[in-house]
Amino acid sequence: MALVAGLRAFGAKWPSWLRRSPWAPLSAGFCSPGSARPAGPESEPRLTSTRQQDGIRSASVFRHTRRGHRIPLQMVVSHHVVGPVFSSGHDLKELTGAQGRDYHTEVFQTCSEVMMLIQNHPVPIIAMVNGLATAAGCQLVASCDIAVASDKSSFATPGVNVGLFCSTPAVALGRAVPRKVALEMLFTGEPISAQEALRHGLISKVVPEEQLEEEATRIAKKIASLSRSVVALGKATFYKQLPQDLSTAYFLASQAMVDNLTLKDGQEGIEAFIQKRRPVWSH
Amino acid sequence: MALVAGLRAFGAKWPSWLRRSPWAPLSAGFCSPGSARPAGPESEPRLTSTRQQDGIRSASVFRHTRRGHRIPLQMVVSHHVVGPVFSSGHDLKELTGAQGRDYHTEVFQTCSEVMMLIQNHPVPIIAMVNGLATAAGCQLVASCDIAVASDKSSFATPGVNVGLFCSTPAVALGRAVPRKVALEMLFTGEPISAQEALRHGLISKVVPEEQLEEEATRIAKKIASLSRSVVALGKATFYKQLPQDLSTAYFLASQAMVDNLTLKDGQEGIEAFIQKRRPVWSH
Amino acid sequence: MALVAGLRAFGAKWPSWLRRSPWAPLSAGFCSPGSARPAGPESEPRLTSTRQQDGIRSASVFRHTRRGHRIPLQMVVSHHVVGPVFSSGHDLKELTGAQGRDYHTEVFQTCSEVMMLIQNHPVPIIAMVNGLATAAGCQLVASCDIAVASDKSSFATPGVNVGLFCSTPAVALGRAVPRKVALEMLFTGEPISAQEALRHGLISKVVPEEQLEEEATRIAKKIASLSRSVVALGKATFYKQLPQDLSTAYFLASQAMVDNLTLKDGQEGIEAFIQKRRPVWSH
Repeated sequence: MALVAGLRAFGAKWPSWLRRSPWAPLSAGFCSPGSARPAGPESEPRLTSTRQQDGIRSASVFRHTRRGHRIPLQMVVSHHVVGPVFSSGHDLKELTGAQGRDYHTEVFQTCSEVMMLIQNHPVPIIAMVNGLATAAGCQLVASCDIAVASDKSSFATPGVNVGLFCSTPAVALGRAVPRKVALEMLFTGEPISAQEALRHGLISKVVPEEQLEEEATRIAKKIASLSRSVVALGKATFYKQLPQDLSTAYFLASQAMVDNLTLKDGQEGIEAFIQKRRPVWSH
Repeated sequence: MALVAGLRAFGAKWPSWLRRSPWAPLSAGFCSPGSARPAGPESEPRLTSTRQQDGIRSASVFRHTRRGHRIPLQMVVSHHVVGPVFSSGHDLKELTGAQGRDYHTEVFQTCSEVMMLIQNHPVPIIAMVNGLATAAGCQLVASCDIAVASDKSSFATPGVNVGLFCSTPAVALGRAVPRKVALEMLFTGEPISAQEALRHGLISKVVPEEQLEEEATRIAKKIASLSRSVVALGKATFYKQLPQDLSTAYFLASQAMVDNLTLKDGQEGIEAFIQKRRPVWSH
Repeated sequence: MALVAGLRAFGAKWPSWLRRSPWAPLSAGFCSPGSARPAGPESEPRLTSTRQQDGIRSASVFRHTRRGHRIPLQMVVSHHVVGPVFSSGHDLKELTGAQGRDYHTEVFQTCSEVMMLIQNHPVPIIAMVNGLATAAGCQLVASCDIAVASDKSSFATPGVNVGLFCSTPAVALGRAVPRKVALEMLFTGEPISAQEALRHGLISKVVPEEQLEEEATRIAKKIASLSRSVVALGKATFYKQLPQDLSTAYFLASQAMVDNLTLKDGQEGIEAFIQKRRPVWSH
């Protein structure tokens, strides 16, 4: 269901790649078709394919039209044997009064925890967007570390149209774009274009549709060529220091630089540089 | 007085629409002409007209030239029977040593409280800017929820030119635009263009002058067509979660989603969606 | 060394202009050539010239190519008899296992303290960038109050390429640009252009190379024409209120406005305005 697409309530079914060791191989088909079912006039986005190649794992999310056509909605490319981010809409039928407050609480808390797992995951997660990313789909883009989009993409938080304000997507959106941009999207439910999303920092790159996969893969390959342990330490430190005051942030980051130097790959990188050779990472 | 325009010290005269129930009708003429008087070579901006139509209340603020011409400075359009934001300059004659520290403290605290009331108000407040918005006029734009400007508009915090640094406007400005942009405006007193303001998030849309009112009204009408109670909950939640750490923010927002579902309009929106009909809001 | 250029560990040799009274004259040559030595295949950026004119002090930082050509890397222009910001690369040879954890800790803490001194300094510090600003060079740009760059400039945090994630530069970068932009730079090590840096708020102005010095000097002269005490109070207040919640921020800023009015230059500015004459600052 596209209008209020959201991360499906996984219940106990959190995406396994996020709970598992990040380097474990992806178990094929962990996302069964049965876990995403139509919820309204349009189908939910659903995960329909995953690929793994050159240390990069990618997954596609599609929206099905009423006539059954698959429209590529977004794809998340990550690296280092990392699984897909699974996005599908909240089933509005699960959100009527019939299910009760406890059930609703579980739905939104689980969704929020999945979004936070993206930040806490040791591997950079790249959103590759080609189409309309709405509600939790937009939240997913805002929550990823890097986001690349085709020039045909757009982004919206339209929950207010059906009387359900996108308050959880607003958490990620409000931290990704200026406040006025977030509020105009949230109050009107209207989409912004890829260029507007780029201007305001929701995504970091816009390319023509035919270059989208190439560009996202290029970024993923670049990251996959670097030291996993160094990247993981850098990512964790970034999110740890960001909400702190400047002095605490620099204390944490300085410690991380020192820790980085004690990593095997930290010393290998410096030695290779001094010896003018390519580093060989232990990860 | 345009150069250091600011929110006038209302004394006990806070804008009544902000203190009243937001849905109470606007009492005409709460802003008497006598409350805004010339303070320098140019007149202060003053509120000269208000309109109410289709659930949208709007108010214009004008600056008077020395020859008495009215230049439209900015207009705030809001919806749901909400009154105007009143902006006029600090009277520099009130800020000489003659009045004393206690009086000056009251002036700035009152001004700050009015700015904070905008965020705490249950209704989205839209700034429509057509001209030069300076000092507290710029602060007002930065404090509104949404801001639309004509391509002829510009924005400045010029207090430093008269030896009075725009420190209170800087609170709103520093939360709306990147730090370097804010500091260049504050340290030099020089204006930025509408396009620069858009690029940096001070405003969310720029349109040609002749389309300004149409665009601001379009946004206001869209918001006015939605559920008041849902919009009010969404706005309050947005500002509540924004300064929190990610985990607390998601906890607050998840609770708000659950609360949203218990609202009459929350269930009406979902039911209407499932039944493929237009929702009928209770507000 | 350009790839992981950083603020050199000054040891006890903090830049003297930051420790001294800001208004003391610059002692020529405080930065001896011996304090910057080649650290890799490319030389470190080094401070090669300083100038003082019209109350503006400026300093150039150059990178030397292997063949000894000087490439202007960046220049920091400040005003009011303020010294240069000295930027040179971390010497990677100092960061091998041979020196030990305590030494490394001192290196990064000292570097961080220098960056924080920029914010705590009473005088606005302007970065003028013409070329590639990497790692701590990029951190320096992000840490300055204002930054102007030529259209040929670019910005990168490439430490990840040599296995040393730019975690301390990320503190400043993550507070200057949207999160996704910062993370793409940090994870890939790839540069962004001057136009991208402008779009995302890392710098506040881009001009053609031949107008760069003129524009930076114009801004510096404008600031130098204003009251030092007012500017210093405004700068201190800005950084003090920025991390606070809105209510605390307005309390601090309102107090600062009142304090500003008690400054000799605060009253002089208002009196001059009322009397329609140019103010004469006491500083």
